[in-house]
Amino acid sequence: MNSIHIKYVDGGVTAPAGFKASGTFGGIRHSGDKSDMALVYSEKQGNVAAVFTKNKIQAAHIKVMKKFIQDGKAQAVLCNSGNANACTADGEDTAIKTCEMTAAALGIRTEDVMPASTGVIGVPMPIEPFERGIPALVSGLSASGSMEAATAIMTTDTLPKEYAVSFPIAGKNCKIGGIAKGSGMIHINMGTMLSFMTTDCAISAEMLDKALKTVIEDTFNQVTVDGDTSTNDTLAIIANGMAGNPEITSENEDFKAFCAALHEICIVFAKKIAGDGEGCTRLLEVHVTNAPTKEAARDISKTVVGSNLVKAAMFAADANWGRIIDAAGYAESDFSVDNIDVTIMSDKGELIVCRGTAAVPFSEEKAAEVLDREAVTVEIDLHDGTEEAYAWGCDLTFEYVRINAEYRT
Amino acid sequence: MNSIHIKYVDGGVTAPAGFKASGTFGGIRHSGDKSDMALVYSEKQGNVAAVFTKNKIQAAHIKVMKKFIQDGKAQAVLCNSGNANACTADGEDTAIKTCEMTAAALGIRTEDVMPASTGVIGVPMPIEPFERGIPALVSGLSASGSMEAATAIMTTDTLPKEYAVSFPIAGKNCKIGGIAKGSGMIHINMGTMLSFMTTDCAISAEMLDKALKTVIEDTFNQVTVDGDTSTNDTLAIIANGMAGNPEITSENEDFKAFCAALHEICIVFAKKIAGDGEGCTRLLEVHVTNAPTKEAARDISKTVVGSNLVKAAMFAADANWGRIIDAAGYAESDFSVDNIDVTIMSDKGELIVCRGTAAVPFSEEKAAEVLDREAVTVEIDLHDGTEEAYAWGCDLTFEYVRINAEYRT
Repeated sequence: MNSIHIKYVDGGVTAPAGFKASGTFGGIRHSGDKSDMALVYSEKQGNVAAVFTKNKIQAAHIKVMKKFIQDGKAQAVLCNSGNANACTADGEDTAIKTCEMTAAALGIRTEDVMPASTGVIGVPMPIEPFERGIPALVSGLSASGSMEAATAIMTTDTLPKEYAVSFPIAGKNCKIGGIAKGSGMIHINMGTMLSFMTTDCAISAEMLDKALKTVIEDTFNQVTVDGDTSTNDTLAIIANGMAGNPEITSENEDFKAFCAALHEICIVFAKKIAGDGEGCTRLLEVHVTNAPTKEAARDISKTVVGSNLVKAAMFAADANWGRIIDAAGYAESDFSVDNIDVTIMSDKGELIVCRGTAAVPFSEEKAAEVLDREAVTVEIDLHDGTEEAYAWGCDLTFEYVRINAEYRT
Repeated sequence: MNSIHIKYVDGGVTAPAGFKASGTFGGIRHSGDKSDMALVYSEKQGNVAAVFTKNKIQAAHIKVMKKFIQDGKAQAVLCNSGNANACTADGEDTAIKTCEMTAAALGIRTEDVMPASTGVIGVPMPIEPFERGIPALVSGLSASGSMEAATAIMTTDTLPKEYAVSFPIAGKNCKIGGIAKGSGMIHINMGTMLSFMTTDCAISAEMLDKALKTVIEDTFNQVTVDGDTSTNDTLAIIANGMAGNPEITSENEDFKAFCAALHEICIVFAKKIAGDGEGCTRLLEVHVTNAPTKEAARDISKTVVGSNLVKAAMFAADANWGRIIDAAGYAESDFSVDNIDVTIMSDKGELIVCRGTAAVPFSEEKAAEVLDREAVTVEIDLHDGTEEAYAWGCDLTFEYVRINAEYRT
């Protein structure tokens, strides 16, 4: 998929032509030590695609956003942290009001502003912080505002997350950029906690939607921090066409190039979210190979990376492969369990711990050396087909428990 | 179901007539501070039924036991802790050998001894500890040996688990007794980590199997500690008929009475296992009411009780109902999310925290008082049908992480 030349560029969500962003403290959070409101804006109205959580309980902003993007058009994202606006009696009305206020200040249509929220569930959303925040967001818009916006949408994240890539289409230099947040209540199912992407590539709303839905299956949807699928997961991408390439309207070579670039940026965000999971000390990647079907490979890798026991062993840098193979065994998919190899690897080398579903003697010292790293990959070779998939997560730590025993109160 | 008179009796697995048990230290564990081998024996050969883990990776003892009980007969259980005998190259041969040794010492058929193991996965099972342990187990058999056996099968359990009930059938006083272990890698799917039950009630193997499979659905299978379904889950019951009642061979009134008594003892073990989950400070019960189907009620209650975020909030005695309703929302079953009430209760009273899927103001002080107890129930009323179910689990604590970061090494 990566035969085209995709390269990293600075600028995050504002890297593509015509996009600006900003962040401010409006007062949704009690303390002003971190901003709580972000705006992303395109000079030109763009095509839009979005995916949302499959949780049956959905935040108010998702209900509003679904209506607003029915025409395939959008021009801005208004996002707050500190309050999820979920399970709130008049949450939809509040979300619409904030879009009206933003649209008026920007001089655009209300339906072209996408609202989004993240934070505590079940607390009524006040309007006053938006009255203070929106004017500051609009006057603060800047072509270098990506990091400000990425910071404003953080909750328990320890690092803001932004990334951008460039890639050629029909001789034009196109870019895709984005910001994301993750950390807790992460078991992504059809979107992530929150991610907003931008591109200057010209692509129809229909093709943008197709690209997004194809790419997320092997990227965002393979991330789990704690098995809890949030009420607020939202991933939206706006394409404003300002790169000047001929608009992509079918599954041609340009579409494939766009998908490859989108895949690249989504993989980076998937790892950033997993590697900054609540309380995490290391990124855990599970790579299932030679599976009977693609679905089985995805299912097994995500099941293993989500196992509390595997995650606790990883915290201790303990090569407890019995827990890995146990978790593979309770994944829902069918596969042969007779000839499984398990290999653990990092930048310190690799170590075979199980071959043919039975123990291989290994040095505990070497195991600890390989495992005690910031990023560890577990490879599970099923010898039962030709499909593969990756999934990403993190270790389970004392800090995870502390954060989640203290988050609300 | 409980219209017959079922009452608690002392004696655990040896309470029913004709059963003896023992425990010893054979040397599977490195340290002799806890016994690691148990034997349960019936004077008369009995009918047997058993259920096993649905994990595709299954311990050697399960493969052997399935063959041995094909004739519906059994007379003894030999169980070790400290080694799971799972993912071991010659594990089945070893399991069969230990049954042969036990059968010879007891003077019964090898196929009437059921082997079982619990402990670390992937470590070859030595035979020497059984050579030392089996003679001691046989000579130590006693009609008051239930607690010795219950202690010998413990791993990270903090308390041995035994229970027994008596109930009348056709004028005869029948009993069902049992021992169980739980603690970690508990997300029961078709049996528990390990539980052995005995009864002197006369019941055919076919009816015993039917009773067991009916009763576990709403008892053992509704328990989760960490979402990890073990490779070793096994629940077996031997019925030796020594109570003298006419054998139960159809779904008559006696069968219903037997099921009611079995249900009672299984509920007790389900709560004992959940309440002694690894690192647990309180038992968490989730009761879903007015669900559209029985399956939905079971699924939603088990999903909520298994949510890491709910469990961490419970550790902090925090009435974070947003996490409860979020977890209900990502359960697989379909139900209406428009009118959900959530009530939290304990021996300190009850507290409505959510009504009609929206916040109800409550006193945080009162919430902490209700929640900071050894047993807490969360009731979720869906107002979308008439079915109900319970599920049991425990809180997620620092101690859970410590135990599982240190278990193997």
